[in-house]
Amino acid sequence: MIGNSRDPNKADVADVRATNLAVVLRCVRERSPCSRADVAAATGLNKTTVSSLVSELLRRRLLRETGTTGNRVGRPAVMLTLDGASCAAIGIEVGADSLTAVAVDLAGRPVLSWRRAFPGAASSPPRAVTAVAALARRVITRTERDGRQVLGLAVALPGLVDADGRARLVPSLGWRDVDFAAGLVDALRGPGFPVEIGNDADFAVLAEHRFGPHAGTADLVYLTGGVGLGAGLLLDGALRRGHTGHSGEAGRIRVPAAEGDARLEELASAAAVVRRASPGEPADDARPSRAELELRIGEVVARARAGDPATLSGLAAAARDLAAGVAVLVDVLDPRRVVLGGYYADLAPWLLPVVNGELAGRAIAPDPGEPIAVASALGLDAPALGAAARILDAVESGRLPDGGAPPAPAAERAVPRYR
Amino acid sequence: MIGNSRDPNKADVADVRATNLAVVLRCVRERSPCSRADVAAATGLNKTTVSSLVSELLRRRLLRETGTTGNRVGRPAVMLTLDGASCAAIGIEVGADSLTAVAVDLAGRPVLSWRRAFPGAASSPPRAVTAVAALARRVITRTERDGRQVLGLAVALPGLVDADGRARLVPSLGWRDVDFAAGLVDALRGPGFPVEIGNDADFAVLAEHRFGPHAGTADLVYLTGGVGLGAGLLLDGALRRGHTGHSGEAGRIRVPAAEGDARLEELASAAAVVRRASPGEPADDARPSRAELELRIGEVVARARAGDPATLSGLAAAARDLAAGVAVLVDVLDPRRVVLGGYYADLAPWLLPVVNGELAGRAIAPDPGEPIAVASALGLDAPALGAAARILDAVESGRLPDGGAPPAPAAERAVPRYR
Repeated sequence: MIGNSRDPNKADVADVRATNLAVVLRCVRERSPCSRADVAAATGLNKTTVSSLVSELLRRRLLRETGTTGNRVGRPAVMLTLDGASCAAIGIEVGADSLTAVAVDLAGRPVLSWRRAFPGAASSPPRAVTAVAALARRVITRTERDGRQVLGLAVALPGLVDADGRARLVPSLGWRDVDFAAGLVDALRGPGFPVEIGNDADFAVLAEHRFGPHAGTADLVYLTGGVGLGAGLLLDGALRRGHTGHSGEAGRIRVPAAEGDARLEELASAAAVVRRASPGEPADDARPSRAELELRIGEVVARARAGDPATLSGLAAAARDLAAGVAVLVDVLDPRRVVLGGYYADLAPWLLPVVNGELAGRAIAPDPGEPIAVASALGLDAPALGAAARILDAVESGRLPDGGAPPAPAAERAVPRYR
Repeated sequence: MIGNSRDPNKADVADVRATNLAVVLRCVRERSPCSRADVAAATGLNKTTVSSLVSELLRRRLLRETGTTGNRVGRPAVMLTLDGASCAAIGIEVGADSLTAVAVDLAGRPVLSWRRAFPGAASSPPRAVTAVAALARRVITRTERDGRQVLGLAVALPGLVDADGRARLVPSLGWRDVDFAAGLVDALRGPGFPVEIGNDADFAVLAEHRFGPHAGTADLVYLTGGVGLGAGLLLDGALRRGHTGHSGEAGRIRVPAAEGDARLEELASAAAVVRRASPGEPADDARPSRAELELRIGEVVARARAGDPATLSGLAAAARDLAAGVAVLVDVLDPRRVVLGGYYADLAPWLLPVVNGELAGRAIAPDPGEPIAVASALGLDAPALGAAARILDAVESGRLPDGGAPPAPAAERAVPRYR
């Protein structure tokens, strides 16, 4: 996060009002459309306060009124909903050979989704910053041309990212200790919105928590299905990044394998699954490009559907090793769902039965018909989508955009009595 | 937890006041002694509100005044501190052959620490409930005779405990699906305070978070060092129990070992370490009693200090396997500290160098001189102490005791404008 942190025990007037604005915003998102009285009932804030907060959110164009409903006792109530047209959150994923950019509106609806080729492994960090900044500027220009205020930009990197936005180790790009966040802020010449850098799996699990069939699940693990293998951990409703921001290094878990134990990533990353399901083919390099991986996954799926024994046997062996790794995560974390993301989703018909079979055999009392491991429904955009979700999460936690909208009049800034 | 849960979005007047009382209580604990003005400055609550909240906490005998200080500009301020004499939280640990009871005051100071023999493995669940209730009644009687109000009772069990207090599986006691919380509440004939059941490792990590040298560390893992091996996980400052309350099953992690992979618990529980460090002796049963384990640990420590090669070699081999398991926890969770608890603490001189050596070799950039694995300083009382800490945590989260103290006059119950 770019910005200064504050003493969490210290709540000043502006903090309390920002928090309450965010409470109302979150409430309207969850119950939309709803009336001011509904908001007061749901939040426990009194009606005068809610009216003042809603007025400010209307002025800031974060909420809008959608007409009245007569479906209740007394006079018709004016209904509120999120103002989808006023702003957008931008997420970008940096991959080894591509950049993915998405923008979503305040309600999480997709506004834009672009992919660009990017010679990541061949780029120096400064060139990568330049390329990401160029794409970001195009997205920002398009967003602002559509009349939307940019709420923030978050960038997902496939590696270890510190809490302050420094990329500690990104193997697929050959980076070590790159201050990507600072470089990007410089390249964007001090944008008027927050810029955040994070790990791709961390952002992807935020996407699963906000979008798709498992939205709202409080305890989620997301596994990246690509050349590497990382986990994003969401426990008790929030991302858990660990002491240094490096949690979820699931690819490093050592798994007992037939040919001697090895790291889970070597045995069962999506790229490893494809390699093991292609026994007759020459072993390619360990880091296939996105295009190569997509091509080979298509071939594996076609052979598996046709019932090719060697392909099915390779898939089964890799699935057993993946299951051993997932079992460790389940034993340690006890998540409600483990979401197999990225290219794992294409291979899910052959992976999930084995993984869930292993988990059912180990669990104390699995819910019948409620498998723990599931395939992601968000596709390859999940990390970029989750980066955008991170920006929306921050807005709903009280980091409201301040550009454009007039501040609340002083008279409305009541002295808080409670927090 | 015994009690009904509420819609977390719904804040009524009593909730807001209870939350603010808890905020003031926590603030005074952290800054004691401090003045009302200090509390207002630290919390952002206005001075009138703080005065009203402090008055109620004084009336409830949760705070007391400790005289004035002249060490500031203006007239001397009356200083506040926690009232240690007024109340106590009770924690009990149920082991396979002993019961441990502790009571601590509001400031966490020990008031009482008892241990009783208990034929756990030979007891039916109803007899165990009777035994625990009998001990609890004696602790309650003693506490109340000392003029202390009981804030609550929490009981640690060495197994899987659901969120509703049901013991799903406790291998060392031979229990499966025992509604221990309900049984205990019945046996205590509806006590006037909360009764909670939890996992021993979960409670122990709460003890580490509140007491001892690592208190306040936001990301902690505690490993029970006994016959079994479980982990308590504390991430971002709070206990993380997982979707069903069964997180931290670290003993199930499969570790590659020289003689084929095995579960971490079989290779490196404290009992397994002792067994492997006693190669000449007959292998005892897999579940030695507490007394047997203590005796044998004393022997291992004596032989290791004397430099016995077979003992040192066995300790080193077990330490390497423990290190492999701890490395998985560190890769997945990225904690600041992994605390080796229970009997591991006695064996720490031989375990810690190996474990920290393994972690230093794997970590990206370990802080020099800041090892991740440390020995617990809380001894064998940690689970019972943590159970009591759980009760204090609940009080500081707003679950104030309601017995004895008069309620606040209606005039002071202002309508909350913010939450």
